[in-house]
Amino acid sequence: MTLDALKSRRRRDYKFHLEYRTRWSDNDMYHHLNNSIYYFLFDSVVNAYLIQHCSLHPPTSSQIGLVVHSHCDYFAPIEFPAIVDLALRVNKLGKSSVSYEIGVFERGQEAARAVGEFIHVFVDRDSRKPGTNGMPEKLKIGLNKIIADKAKL
Amino acid sequence: MTLDALKSRRRRDYKFHLEYRTRWSDNDMYHHLNNSIYYFLFDSVVNAYLIQHCSLHPPTSSQIGLVVHSHCDYFAPIEFPAIVDLALRVNKLGKSSVSYEIGVFERGQEAARAVGEFIHVFVDRDSRKPGTNGMPEKLKIGLNKIIADKAKL
Amino acid sequence: MTLDALKSRRRRDYKFHLEYRTRWSDNDMYHHLNNSIYYFLFDSVVNAYLIQHCSLHPPTSSQIGLVVHSHCDYFAPIEFPAIVDLALRVNKLGKSSVSYEIGVFERGQEAARAVGEFIHVFVDRDSRKPGTNGMPEKLKIGLNKIIADKAKL
Amino acid sequence: MTLDALKSRRRRDYKFHLEYRTRWSDNDMYHHLNNSIYYFLFDSVVNAYLIQHCSLHPPTSSQIGLVVHSHCDYFAPIEFPAIVDLALRVNKLGKSSVSYEIGVFERGQEAARAVGEFIHVFVDRDSRKPGTNGMPEKLKIGLNKIIADKAKL
Repeated sequence: MTLDALKSRRRRDYKFHLEYRTRWSDNDMYHHLNNSIYYFLFDSVVNAYLIQHCSLHPPTSSQIGLVVHSHCDYFAPIEFPAIVDLALRVNKLGKSSVSYEIGVFERGQEAARAVGEFIHVFVDRDSRKPGTNGMPEKLKIGLNKIIADKAKL
Repeated sequence: MTLDALKSRRRRDYKFHLEYRTRWSDNDMYHHLNNSIYYFLFDSVVNAYLIQHCSLHPPTSSQIGLVVHSHCDYFAPIEFPAIVDLALRVNKLGKSSVSYEIGVFERGQEAARAVGEFIHVFVDRDSRKPGTNGMPEKLKIGLNKIIADKAKL
Repeated sequence: MTLDALKSRRRRDYKFHLEYRTRWSDNDMYHHLNNSIYYFLFDSVVNAYLIQHCSLHPPTSSQIGLVVHSHCDYFAPIEFPAIVDLALRVNKLGKSSVSYEIGVFERGQEAARAVGEFIHVFVDRDSRKPGTNGMPEKLKIGLNKIIADKAKL
Repeated sequence: MTLDALKSRRRRDYKFHLEYRTRWSDNDMYHHLNNSIYYFLFDSVVNAYLIQHCSLHPPTSSQIGLVVHSHCDYFAPIEFPAIVDLALRVNKLGKSSVSYEIGVFERGQEAARAVGEFIHVFVDRDSRKPGTNGMPEKLKIGLNKIIADKAKL
């Protein structure tokens, strides 16, 4: 994926959307959202989707998703009290792992402010090892619904 | 203010409202919003109001608001991915200081989950001392608009 | 407790101490530790003590501590990358509840920067109600060790 | 850089070290440090170095560092109240940009728990564009001191 391709991402390139209000403490000394905050937002849109559309129940589900890799490219700043649109898709769905892509947009603006990816490996809650049969069926079905169109990858 | 009075707070007891989506990381090991997160939310609704309705511009305004005291009473838990309603009013408006009250509600629920107060002293950006004439006029006018009805204090 | 009494708190008024390095993101747009961060620090020193000296194991202990009230008075700012000394004592120990006081000091400085209190109610992990016999014995013994000297309350 | 090479990182592969105490709220619902927290720690060790060894003064310096990319690979969990060693080096130093690598270790353990990189572009505080002569000389000298040995890249 080239940086230019990422920069040209639009809301329509994603399948699931949630609006998030920024918080006072998200801004750092340079008066814009701190780079780390984007990862909090990634986690939030991904887990909201997993809970509401894939039957994940973090306190009790037999399998949980552990993050093994994450990255983000930042194109333009966002400042509190802006409202951000988090846009989610699945770029790759494996037996036990899934790679999400998240686009961060600002309400009223077309261009992406930042685009990131992170990889969940679903593991057994106690052993923290992937299940022999991979992730639960309901999870796979839910994630399949937001898989990116091949041509756009 | 008795604890019973605080517990019986409803949305109508406040003058300004903002909905906030909770984040994955707001939940702590006990699977509910960590107590500290409420203060992030207080700061967010107060500063959103100051910026949007009182002409505050945090990077350049001649006076800024410093928190000298804060407190919160917690009545019931909130869990990500719930959406919270933050409800704001001014309980006391002085020459340079203001005491805010914030009610935290969960979407779809009538009872307050938590109620807190915090006190801002407006000080000169550089000297960090209150101005001789108190806070700027635009600030005072904006804060006056959300002052609590006397009978309800 | 008068504000003057709190302002005159010194490290020797507390029984347990932990040094914490501040983080970049602790500073807000006004270039000092955001008021909410102090509550994160309170939680950290209290829970470190509970885990290391009172046998608390947050993922499995039969009882857990829920915060029902917290407050803080702020006397002077702290700026990243300062190192803070968190000083802890127990002000009141009940059957199921405990009131902690935390003094926040900056390395190399005698005066307290902030002093806060928070109240934990220990409840059964599942029912989230206090136990009929109050908190576990090991917890009570550990908390008793850092109870404040009566004369200084 | 292969994942195996990153996994075999040791403290001696880095030039600057800071110990950080973890916080209660760093742990998420899965009882370990949330993936986003690592980026807060990266920011903290980098900016502590910039302030203490490169003359950066975030509120007033003519140039400031903006993050344009970050990534992290996670190898093993860390749990509050663990103490982490943050280990820093510069992987690449350009005219206006610098690529840092941060190794995250747990006190008492040899193997890296996570390794990440992030890229700062130094820009003029007001225009937010890189300076025509690149980053300030003091910054370049300071960053040069922690540049990684070529053979180890």
